[in-house]
Amino acid sequence: MRNLVKILVIVSLVVSFSSAKKVYKLKMATTWGPTLSPLFDAAVNMAKMAEEMSNGELKIRIDAANKHKAPFGVLDMVKGGQYDLGHSASYYWKGKDIATLPFTSMPFGLTAPEQYAWFYYGGGLELMQKVYARHNLYSYPGGSTGVQMGGWFRKEINSVDDLNGIKMRIPGFAGEIMAKLGVQVTNIAPGELYTALERNNIDALEWVGPSMDINMGFHKVAPYYYTGWHEPASEMHFMVNKKVFDKLPKHLQAILENSMKLAAYNMYAQNYDMNATAWKKMKEEYPSIQVKTFPKEVMDAMKKANKELREELSAKSPELKEVLDSQDEYIKKVREWTKMSDYLYIKDNI
Amino acid sequence: MRNLVKILVIVSLVVSFSSAKKVYKLKMATTWGPTLSPLFDAAVNMAKMAEEMSNGELKIRIDAANKHKAPFGVLDMVKGGQYDLGHSASYYWKGKDIATLPFTSMPFGLTAPEQYAWFYYGGGLELMQKVYARHNLYSYPGGSTGVQMGGWFRKEINSVDDLNGIKMRIPGFAGEIMAKLGVQVTNIAPGELYTALERNNIDALEWVGPSMDINMGFHKVAPYYYTGWHEPASEMHFMVNKKVFDKLPKHLQAILENSMKLAAYNMYAQNYDMNATAWKKMKEEYPSIQVKTFPKEVMDAMKKANKELREELSAKSPELKEVLDSQDEYIKKVREWTKMSDYLYIKDNI
Repeated sequence: MRNLVKILVIVSLVVSFSSAKKVYKLKMATTWGPTLSPLFDAAVNMAKMAEEMSNGELKIRIDAANKHKAPFGVLDMVKGGQYDLGHSASYYWKGKDIATLPFTSMPFGLTAPEQYAWFYYGGGLELMQKVYARHNLYSYPGGSTGVQMGGWFRKEINSVDDLNGIKMRIPGFAGEIMAKLGVQVTNIAPGELYTALERNNIDALEWVGPSMDINMGFHKVAPYYYTGWHEPASEMHFMVNKKVFDKLPKHLQAILENSMKLAAYNMYAQNYDMNATAWKKMKEEYPSIQVKTFPKEVMDAMKKANKELREELSAKSPELKEVLDSQDEYIKKVREWTKMSDYLYIKDNI
Repeated sequence: MRNLVKILVIVSLVVSFSSAKKVYKLKMATTWGPTLSPLFDAAVNMAKMAEEMSNGELKIRIDAANKHKAPFGVLDMVKGGQYDLGHSASYYWKGKDIATLPFTSMPFGLTAPEQYAWFYYGGGLELMQKVYARHNLYSYPGGSTGVQMGGWFRKEINSVDDLNGIKMRIPGFAGEIMAKLGVQVTNIAPGELYTALERNNIDALEWVGPSMDINMGFHKVAPYYYTGWHEPASEMHFMVNKKVFDKLPKHLQAILENSMKLAAYNMYAQNYDMNATAWKKMKEEYPSIQVKTFPKEVMDAMKKANKELREELSAKSPELKEVLDSQDEYIKKVREWTKMSDYLYIKDNI
């Protein structure tokens, strides 16, 4: 009897211990500061959903850029294990690995609905994992801004000549294209952009779209708002340290993965709403703003420069070429559908 | 000592019992049969995610229409408690409650990105809950087909006169609009549609879009494929019995809600991909298919009929009017953004 009691005690203790909830505390670094809506919101939204759904088994602490001081060090910090997760944009890592470039958005590339279809049903996510596996990371879409605008210009652009010699803030791959067209591409800290534009130190600049441009005030000093061509669906991304993720119980892996996916889609809807709201406000306060598309001559020159740059880079990196080829192949198929569905629907309702 | 041991046994047993996993078994009825992709897939996807994320605490059994035999009885069955969950389309319930109509899609209404923005950031979901609360249900978006095509026609439509007297299968609200334009609207069982079209018993029919039309074979007998106007973003919906949901632990409520949201977005991406793939195949096999938009005269007549019907219904139901007003208000704002973003981007890339 005494032995039976002892066994019962031990069994019960083991059972209650093993079924007690273990809390996994994870740390996430973002490239953004804590007020950069909707980008930072996507990270917060993801962490909140993961905590709620896991009943507290997952606890995710978010360090914004003002805390860790390394907005463009996020990939290295997650890779190196200082952080378990990161929220950033894939094209920031093109200097480390050019194959990461196309997972954000490519000039003249996929729109947001097309790109989500490519990621989840057209092989895009598999290619993303393949590229990031070389960095011991998993990577997932982290929220689309939708179409980014082509930028604010003080003067109208009617030809390639009009672009020649103008000073413009436009970073990254799009900046390289503009440079090929004769634009003097400059880099200016975000906090100084408004003054530079107002004082004619620059002639034009590219930022994001109405949702994020409105607080910068560019519309007060540059009346021409050019439509997008260079980032038709900029997708942020979540990174996860592979070792950390692989050690999590299966159901927490599922929660984390689905929280990232859902936070990404949510940000797309959120920014769509924010763009609509911000544009309405801008236009009401500054009715003189003119929405412009670049003339065909300029678009053709951009397309040519884009093609040349892509070919140069692809020749050096078969890994990049594989991703670009997959997107090119997909766009051929999916664009036909976009044209006969959303495009013609809107065209008939203008 | 003996007493201490006894207490330990009891405490341990209580702890291990109380922390043992409770399994919540839920039953879901769908309006679709088990092979109707991507609609049925969304229900399966939702259940799978909920089970995985809950580590088996949620078990969802899905009964397709061929099992429960009541595709249009899903709302009543979930309301009455025979089922805990349902997957269907909100506009099927317009005969019971006209205010449920606009949560699927309205003619000349919101596109999918616009509608998701309205649901989650423009007050749409709150209105949906308000309408469904009267039926003791919660309701959530359940997957968008995107733009549905205007249908297959044997002859080209160049005027309202050309529509007068033609026989067309087009159910629901869109059918009422067509009837106002002189179309003889008929109802034919899906299994007999192809033969009816082939044998000239009908002149035209509306189904969904390439993804679901391809297996019906309509493109083999009707060469004109008209673009969409009546369902620019048909959103399926999940229903949940309120009592059942309210009794679930908070984390399982979060899992269920997020699984529904994510399954909805996923279906939108899946169907976008399916449409692109199906259209490519159709067009390769039948290059003679012509994509057509209705001429302005016809579109204007449709818009007029649509307006009249909406006003008649709104006059009878303030609940419907509230939802329609919210969508109208939202579209005014969001469409400006759609035009300057995705629309002009595609236009410049044709």
